[in-house]
Amino acid sequence: MLLPERTVERLSEYRRSLLQCLEEGKTHIYSHELAALHHITAVQVRRDIMFVGYTSMQRKGYDVKELVGVIEDILDSRKGLNVAVVGVGNLGRAITTYFIGKRSKLNIIATFDVDANKIDRVISGVKCYPLSRLEEIVRTKDISIVIMTVPADAAREVASQLVEVGIRGILNFTTVSLPVTRDVYLDEYDMITSLEKVAYFVKMSRK
Amino acid sequence: MLLPERTVERLSEYRRSLLQCLEEGKTHIYSHELAALHHITAVQVRRDIMFVGYTSMQRKGYDVKELVGVIEDILDSRKGLNVAVVGVGNLGRAITTYFIGKRSKLNIIATFDVDANKIDRVISGVKCYPLSRLEEIVRTKDISIVIMTVPADAAREVASQLVEVGIRGILNFTTVSLPVTRDVYLDEYDMITSLEKVAYFVKMSRK
Repeated sequence: MLLPERTVERLSEYRRSLLQCLEEGKTHIYSHELAALHHITAVQVRRDIMFVGYTSMQRKGYDVKELVGVIEDILDSRKGLNVAVVGVGNLGRAITTYFIGKRSKLNIIATFDVDANKIDRVISGVKCYPLSRLEEIVRTKDISIVIMTVPADAAREVASQLVEVGIRGILNFTTVSLPVTRDVYLDEYDMITSLEKVAYFVKMSRK
Repeated sequence: MLLPERTVERLSEYRRSLLQCLEEGKTHIYSHELAALHHITAVQVRRDIMFVGYTSMQRKGYDVKELVGVIEDILDSRKGLNVAVVGVGNLGRAITTYFIGKRSKLNIIATFDVDANKIDRVISGVKCYPLSRLEEIVRTKDISIVIMTVPADAAREVASQLVEVGIRGILNFTTVSLPVTRDVYLDEYDMITSLEKVAYFVKMSRK
């Protein structure tokens, strides 16, 4: 059964908070606490968690470690998935650094660029390959997901190359909307939209 | 009337595509074209656009320039809003560079950090101030929105400082969920959630 996108997002967010709890030595958590952390209702939290088959909420709340395990089984692949970052500018570097050590089942194991000054260097802890070697590296390193941080004017061409070489999932951080292709899961994020949303609600709250 | 968050997001996304159309010399667009660019239905596009009071779809589609104007009136503040980036690491720099010249009504006019090597320098085109001068700079420069890109362990403390000095909107890029405060609009984005969502759908499509 395929979970809805929003549920997957929330499970990922719950896990983030639950891992934080474990770090802080907290072993149990109530649905209303988890809800407050994510600015949603406790009903929503309980619904999501029942939906994924975890029902053993006790008087002291959910067992944090068990719940992390349940979410792991759903979100993670047993062997893990290999990820590449295409486009090693500031954003590409920030993302690469950001992910290191964050999730054991998603590993950024290569980056790609066309700039001769970056190629064959280790940047943010990961080796940078020339884009011309994309197909070979994707195959030999079994890369299935790409984070796209190329300049806007290169976005469409790079995306079709990614599809051609068999990439299965693309996280697009460029400002260019990509066409959907069968068999490739595409997620797009434009920071401008987030900022414009904040700006809209700030503007309206002033009236 | 306050628009729902999702509608505001879509309007921002439509504008992005419409500005792209104008650059390419395209003067009219059909709802189904706009829908395809955003991977949604034409019905959704028409509903959003009627909802904001624009009804003059003609045989050749919406007038792109007019529609951009309608969205501007809704999303933008007349005078514009001033934005600061707090935390000038790779991500802070990437975001600052990324926004320059992208939207005339949202200006990143200051960055803040605690690192003496960054303070008083111009980084990615914007001056970096010491965090200790936050209150003064926010007041004198009329800053109402902050993009937070500080390290996770500083997130909560910085957020409460922002609220104290009167920031109205926060876009939180740290991995730490912040508590909601009355009168401050908060939007949070964790890249890991986007990547885990892509990974989940890649994993499920393999089965």
